[in-house]
Amino acid sequence: MTTSATPRLPVTAIIAPGWDQPRWQRALMAAAPGLEVRLWPDLGDVSEIEAVLLWKQPAGALAGMSRLGLAQSLGAGVEHLLNDPAIGDHVVLGRAVDPAMTGEMVRFVVHAVLAVSVDAAGYRAQQAAGLWEERSVPGGALRVGMLGLGELGAAAAQALAGLGFTVTGWSRSARQVAGVTCLSGAEGLDRLIAGTDCLVNLLPLTDETRGLIDAALLARLPQGAHLVNVARGGHVVEADLLAALDDGRLASATLDVTAVEPLPQGHPFWSHPKIVLTPHVAAASTPETMAPILAESLRRHAAGRPPLDPVERTRGY
Amino acid sequence: MTTSATPRLPVTAIIAPGWDQPRWQRALMAAAPGLEVRLWPDLGDVSEIEAVLLWKQPAGALAGMSRLGLAQSLGAGVEHLLNDPAIGDHVVLGRAVDPAMTGEMVRFVVHAVLAVSVDAAGYRAQQAAGLWEERSVPGGALRVGMLGLGELGAAAAQALAGLGFTVTGWSRSARQVAGVTCLSGAEGLDRLIAGTDCLVNLLPLTDETRGLIDAALLARLPQGAHLVNVARGGHVVEADLLAALDDGRLASATLDVTAVEPLPQGHPFWSHPKIVLTPHVAAASTPETMAPILAESLRRHAAGRPPLDPVERTRGY
Repeated sequence: MTTSATPRLPVTAIIAPGWDQPRWQRALMAAAPGLEVRLWPDLGDVSEIEAVLLWKQPAGALAGMSRLGLAQSLGAGVEHLLNDPAIGDHVVLGRAVDPAMTGEMVRFVVHAVLAVSVDAAGYRAQQAAGLWEERSVPGGALRVGMLGLGELGAAAAQALAGLGFTVTGWSRSARQVAGVTCLSGAEGLDRLIAGTDCLVNLLPLTDETRGLIDAALLARLPQGAHLVNVARGGHVVEADLLAALDDGRLASATLDVTAVEPLPQGHPFWSHPKIVLTPHVAAASTPETMAPILAESLRRHAAGRPPLDPVERTRGY
Repeated sequence: MTTSATPRLPVTAIIAPGWDQPRWQRALMAAAPGLEVRLWPDLGDVSEIEAVLLWKQPAGALAGMSRLGLAQSLGAGVEHLLNDPAIGDHVVLGRAVDPAMTGEMVRFVVHAVLAVSVDAAGYRAQQAAGLWEERSVPGGALRVGMLGLGELGAAAAQALAGLGFTVTGWSRSARQVAGVTCLSGAEGLDRLIAGTDCLVNLLPLTDETRGLIDAALLARLPQGAHLVNVARGGHVVEADLLAALDDGRLASATLDVTAVEPLPQGHPFWSHPKIVLTPHVAAASTPETMAPILAESLRRHAAGRPPLDPVERTRGY
C-alpha cells in the first residue's frame, strides 16, 4: 500500500470571489481524493487552514490563518500573493500556468497581431463605406517586439515567428527562444523598442515594470507603431498612452487589461477609435486542467517540497 | 562559357490589366536579363509573342498570337487560362505559387479563424455598448475544416493545428499533412462537414467544385458554424449562404471573394451584420518574389521542358 506513506494533505481554502468556486472545488477533489477544500466566505475555523488557493482575495480574507504554510495563485499573476500583508515571509508561494491557458494566450496574442498585420480595422471601415479597394497593409513585414519571455511570452513569440514575422523578445535576464532574437537589460530594451512596429506586453507586474510603458518609451517606438497589452494595466501609464494615440505616434492599442478593472464607465478607453478593448479575458485558468497541477503542488507541500512553480519574492514572479 | 548553350528565351507579354505591369516587367528583366517583355495593351506585332503571363486578361487579348507556346498564370488561380478560347490545346499552361503569397494567405486565414475563436466581433459589440463581461467563446475547441490541401490549404491547415485547433482537411485525391486529419472523396467530405465548426475554403475552382458550398452542404454543418472563403466566389451559392446566415444555421461568413468582383453596390453582402468582407486581398503575388520563379519556367520552356508548376487541363488546376 503506497497510500500509507502519503503525508496528510493540507486543509485548503479557495478564495476567488466572482469565480465559480464550487467548480474549482469539484475539480480539485477529483484530482486529490480526500482533500478538504473550503470555499470563501464559509471558511469555518480559519486557524485550521494550511493552504490557500487565491485569486484577488479581499483585504483581510486571510486574517487569523495561523497555520498557513502555502499560498498558491490560481492564475499566472502573483501580485495578490506578494501584496497581501497577511501572507508572512514563512509562507511558501506558488503559482501554476495552466497548459490550456498558454494556448489561449497564444491565440489571443496572435489574433491581435494578425489583426494589425492584415489591417482588419481598415477593411471593416471600407466594408461599412461600401468601398472595394486594396489597402497597403504591413503584412509579414510587421516587426513584433515581445516584452516578457516567460512561459506565455515565449510561446506567443514562437508562434508569431512561425507565421513569418520577425520577432524580437526582451526579458529581465537573458533567455533563448528558437526563432526569436532575445535581448535583455536596459540597452536591449532600447534596441527592441526602436525596431518594433507592434509591441506586445506579457511582462510580470513588478516594482521594476510598473509604469514601464510611458511617454518616454512610446516616444522611442517608430512612428505609427501598435501596442498589444495582455499583461497588467499597471504596466501602462494610461494618460501617456492616450496622448500617444492622439498625436499619431501610436496607430492602435489592443488592451485586455486596464489599471482599474472593470474599466469605469465614461473612461476614454471605451470609445477611443484606436483602442480595441476586452475585459481581461485573453487567457483564464480552467479548473479541470489546473486541478492536477494544484493537487501535485499540495502533495509536494505536504511532503516538505516546494510547489511545482514556486514564486521568488525577490524577483517578484 | 555556359551561356552559349542557353536557348533563346521566348518573346513574352504581360497581360494583367489593373496591376502594376511595369513593376512586373522590371522584376522579370532583373531575373532574366535580355528577356523581351511587352506590356498590355502595347504588344506590338502579336505574331512574335511566344509566351504570355496572365492575370484576368480581357476577352480577345490573345487574338493573333500564332506562335504562342506557354501561358503562365501570375496568381494561384488558373481559370483565366482554362477558359480563354484563344489558348489552344497545344499551349503549355503553368502557374506559380509565390512563396511570399503562401505566408500572406496563411496569416489571412489564421486571422479569420482566430477572430471566430476569440469572438472578436462579440467583444467589439460589448466595447461599443460599454459592457465589461466575459463571453463564452469557442477558443481552442473550435473544430476547423479545411477544403483544399494544395500548397496554400496545407500550409494554413498546419499553422492552425500548431495553434491548438483540431483540423480536418479535404482534397480530391488523398493527401498527408502533418498534424491534420486528411480525408478525400464524397464520403470524406460528408465526414468533414459534419464535424466542422469553422469551414475554410481554399479549393481550386473547377467544374467539380463550382457551387460546392450550397444549401445542401451548409445544412450538414453543425448549428452555428462559420465559413471563411478565401478561394473563389464561384465556390459559393450566394443566395444559399444568405439564407443560412439569416436562419441562424451559419453564425458568420468571412468572404475575401465574391461571384462578381468588385462586389456590386447594393449587394446584400456589403451590409450584412454576419458578413466580414474584404476585396480579394488575402494573398497577392509580389513581382519581386515571383519573378525568379517565372524566369525559371521561361528558361525551362525555351529548353523544351515543362514549367515549374504545370497545370493539367483535365483536373483543372
